Amino acid sequence: MRYFDKLQARIEDVDSRLCVGLDPRIERHNSEAEMQEELIRLIEHTQNYAAAFKPNMAYFEVMGSKGLQILELILKRIPKNIPVILDAKRSDIGETQKRYAQAYFENWDVDAVTLNPFLGYDSIEPFLDYEEKGVYLLAVTSNKGSKDFQHLLVDGVPLYEKVIAMATKAKEQNALTDVGMVVGLTNSSTELMKVVNSVPLLVPGLGAQGGSIDTISQAANVPTVVNVSRGISYATDDLSYGARAEKWAQLLSRD
Amino acid sequence: MRYFDKLQARIEDVDSRLCVGLDPRIERHNSEAEMQEELIRLIEHTQNYAAAFKPNMAYFEVMGSKGLQILELILKRIPKNIPVILDAKRSDIGETQKRYAQAYFENWDVDAVTLNPFLGYDSIEPFLDYEEKGVYLLAVTSNKGSKDFQHLLVDGVPLYEKVIAMATKAKEQNALTDVGMVVGLTNSSTELMKVVNSVPLLVPGLGAQGGSIDTISQAANVPTVVNVSRGISYATDDLSYGARAEKWAQLLSRD
Repeated sequence: MRYFDKLQARIEDVDSRLCVGLDPRIERHNSEAEMQEELIRLIEHTQNYAAAFKPNMAYFEVMGSKGLQILELILKRIPKNIPVILDAKRSDIGETQKRYAQAYFENWDVDAVTLNPFLGYDSIEPFLDYEEKGVYLLAVTSNKGSKDFQHLLVDGVPLYEKVIAMATKAKEQNALTDVGMVVGLTNSSTELMKVVNSVPLLVPGLGAQGGSIDTISQAANVPTVVNVSRGISYATDDLSYGARAEKWAQLLSRD
Repeated sequence: MRYFDKLQARIEDVDSRLCVGLDPRIERHNSEAEMQEELIRLIEHTQNYAAAFKPNMAYFEVMGSKGLQILELILKRIPKNIPVILDAKRSDIGETQKRYAQAYFENWDVDAVTLNPFLGYDSIEPFLDYEEKGVYLLAVTSNKGSKDFQHLLVDGVPLYEKVIAMATKAKEQNALTDVGMVVGLTNSSTELMKVVNSVPLLVPGLGAQGGSIDTISQAANVPTVVNVSRGISYATDDLSYGARAEKWAQLLSRD
């Protein structure tokens, strides 16, 4: 089964586009062991509402090899029918990029990875030969600096459309790997959302990162997901992980 | 001491711009333990010729947490007066990018890191508050796909000049961290080399990646370095690591 089919099936199962972000903040816990236990609790309590899980590498790398051990352990605790999107935003070329693809798709066996497209089409090719896997190319990020490159006009066309063209090219060349895009709502427009209407998106967040759910008007059969991290892991309300996930899942219901 | 001053001093000490790449290929060794021993031998035998060492994260990540353990161990084996450039090509924003900066500059205490600038100026800011540290922004990479973004014209000016402008902006804003650039010789031109004449470069390679040493005509006091990985670690000649490093160091002598 292709990656986007697996993701779409899961979205229909939970009737939600909720992607639960796994961004553990070590300074909020008393120890690495306690943080690991909390992550496992988070996964167990939110998995009935999650269309996908998205661990972000930075929050594990900050703990060095010990952090990667924790990541390896929690990856095993996520049920196989729930897609895992590893938020790595990697970029390299040729033989070196191939190692990243092996690391994530072969060794860790995650379902999808985020990639930075700035090194060009051939730089993402090492990731495109994997059946049942997906990549998300950074097209429009949610920070202010998004304008510094992504919105620059090349022959009157914003640079992010070159990223859309890369996704289209992969599809036309019958890549085994599915290709979607990362689009932050804060810096997107109705126009942009129309352009990407048929491309499955990974939307980095609504709450802390800003943006409105109404902007997402994609067809019900396009498996776009919206990530929520802090709003579930570290909200200041008195709700449990499960109650928060349920609330977000409803807000991000499919229709 | 600022990063570029440390690097310049080291270049003068060894009278060479040679950066020794640490890209261990696990499949060429019988075990992880053997690979680790070879890496330590490589560092010991080449350190008298190295202006800098550059481990590339991909070759360690492909071994998961075990790979990062090996990286952590070998970082401790590099003498403190030789700068370490961690080739990570990372990109993220805000709080998340801050974690990468902590991971590399605070926890691992490497001297410099490569970054992908596609997410804009504010995305590199979390790396700019570190005295004695440096970052290299990807400007022109050595692969074919370099043309897909880096050489596109925005108002008649190639996109890589926006990367140069980011380096200049950091300097003007008195960033504590020094900012250089990655420029692959295969895709650079005499024109480009003139533009970046005063910016210290990390040149990804000559041999396997192509490019000629004559292209580098920078002033003797600009601490540009040229990386050699396979040419020292996995050459098919009968020379020792030390003899290969000596040969490359001479080819890359300062003048």
